[in-house]
Amino acid sequence: MTVNILFAAHPKRWAEYENPLHKALEKTGITYSLKTEFPPEEVDYIVYAPNSDVQDFTPYTRAKAVLNLWAGVESVAPNPTLKLPLARMVGGGLTEGMVEWVTGHTLRHHLGMDAHIVNPSNQWQVRIPPMANERPVTILGLGELGLACGRALAALGFPVTGWSRSPKSVDGITTCHGTDGLKDALKGAEIIILLLPNTPATENTLNAETLGLTAPGAFVINPGRGTLIDDDALLAALDSGQIAHATLDVFRVEPLPSDHPYWAHEKVTVTPHIASETRPGPAAEVIAENVRRGEAGEPFLYLVDRTQGY
Amino acid sequence: MTVNILFAAHPKRWAEYENPLHKALEKTGITYSLKTEFPPEEVDYIVYAPNSDVQDFTPYTRAKAVLNLWAGVESVAPNPTLKLPLARMVGGGLTEGMVEWVTGHTLRHHLGMDAHIVNPSNQWQVRIPPMANERPVTILGLGELGLACGRALAALGFPVTGWSRSPKSVDGITTCHGTDGLKDALKGAEIIILLLPNTPATENTLNAETLGLTAPGAFVINPGRGTLIDDDALLAALDSGQIAHATLDVFRVEPLPSDHPYWAHEKVTVTPHIASETRPGPAAEVIAENVRRGEAGEPFLYLVDRTQGY
Repeated sequence: MTVNILFAAHPKRWAEYENPLHKALEKTGITYSLKTEFPPEEVDYIVYAPNSDVQDFTPYTRAKAVLNLWAGVESVAPNPTLKLPLARMVGGGLTEGMVEWVTGHTLRHHLGMDAHIVNPSNQWQVRIPPMANERPVTILGLGELGLACGRALAALGFPVTGWSRSPKSVDGITTCHGTDGLKDALKGAEIIILLLPNTPATENTLNAETLGLTAPGAFVINPGRGTLIDDDALLAALDSGQIAHATLDVFRVEPLPSDHPYWAHEKVTVTPHIASETRPGPAAEVIAENVRRGEAGEPFLYLVDRTQGY
Repeated sequence: MTVNILFAAHPKRWAEYENPLHKALEKTGITYSLKTEFPPEEVDYIVYAPNSDVQDFTPYTRAKAVLNLWAGVESVAPNPTLKLPLARMVGGGLTEGMVEWVTGHTLRHHLGMDAHIVNPSNQWQVRIPPMANERPVTILGLGELGLACGRALAALGFPVTGWSRSPKSVDGITTCHGTDGLKDALKGAEIIILLLPNTPATENTLNAETLGLTAPGAFVINPGRGTLIDDDALLAALDSGQIAHATLDVFRVEPLPSDHPYWAHEKVTVTPHIASETRPGPAAEVIAENVRRGEAGEPFLYLVDRTQGY
């Protein structure tokens, strides 16, 4: 029997994903049909991006799973019409891209690159940065992405502390957890990297109180979610010098509105939600593997625990 | 018998090195005297920086070795009065610092960071860079520093090609050597990192011809020596777009003169010879180990082969 796979994402994505998905699905040996439209009751799998037109899952009575193209599921997980298993994207180039972006911006702040990139008066001013092993880095969030970034930074010599809600033990990384652990993780940190999911419990993790715990003149790097930061508190900490610079890739509203104070702030670097972007080739392999598992009756990869929201 | 160790470097350095050297020398158990002045004929070891006042080694009749604080020895190795063994600095934080600087600037160019750091019209412009594994990097020079940088970049996923004068084989790095190998190494390279020593054979390694071999719009990163680049050829390649940007840490004259065209060129980033700087703590350990070896009759570490000039 033919397995019907609906591609439900922004129309622009179809051009990028059609060939990679065929290539990956053909390798599974499954007889399938991949289209952007089916009668809903005939769909077996929904390859999904949360900005798709499909927002009511009720008519998809036969479907076995929603296979998300994005790592983030906060805009689909709470959908009350969704009773199907929901898998998030893991891999698909996401992790590698995130490691590149996080490592690059961590080294940028560590080395003080901006003073050389923007140097209008042509100052030959020698300031030797500390060694990486003298620069404590704290990562909030030890999921797939946080762990991969932590390992890459530890390999470069940074002393890395990682914080997660529940206890974790990771070679080469100092870990702490829970509310008190968050304070320990931030205390004295010189570079803080946010890689927590967006849940009610993580909102405003960086706020006036927690921003006061870091080393003076620390750097904040947020490739996680815009909601993790109390924006007004961060702006105040930048103005006071408690935070020396913030590099932000994600925002409560995207694209960041042109009148948002982050744009004009000389201590803020805005990047346009590029820290980690699914790449069609490797993402298609993940989707195809989950279709194969569904047809073989094996458990899906990367299922979302919807009681936690991620 | 007391071993007399002369500290012959710029006077500013004494304040930084005195304590770390005592700390490291005391651990050897040797009875020593460490000073900035001795009668030359009483000196056993010369801890040396090439910008020291000591330029005539003839009176140091009893000395066993010159222990350089710098990695670069090109201004001391050819000194005709120097008949003593000459050891260069390896370690001492040099390698780690170089890996940090090279990895940081490689990721900066790879990710296109400058467009976000300098973004006066507040453009939210999404451009996804290729994955690191699609970005060929070529390192010219596979000494201690080149190897360490190559390994760090390969660990981040970059396909790394390394070129050296004589054949080398390195896990995870494609190697080539000799004159023809240089052309192979540069062909299609998108990021070129210069870590060759300064010798007559390496002068102008990047010139009009070799700069024409890279991928169009490649990036040049030079933390090696200023003489490795034909400056006029690089400026022409930047103007034509063959080279998209050059980040340069070393120059034929330092500090870089204020009227040098590199300062004003929008496609050039000047950093003030900071890519790798000896740190007193770890450098003192290297010096002390060589004193210990000299007293024990063991071979010195990091001896310069003065027929090659490095």
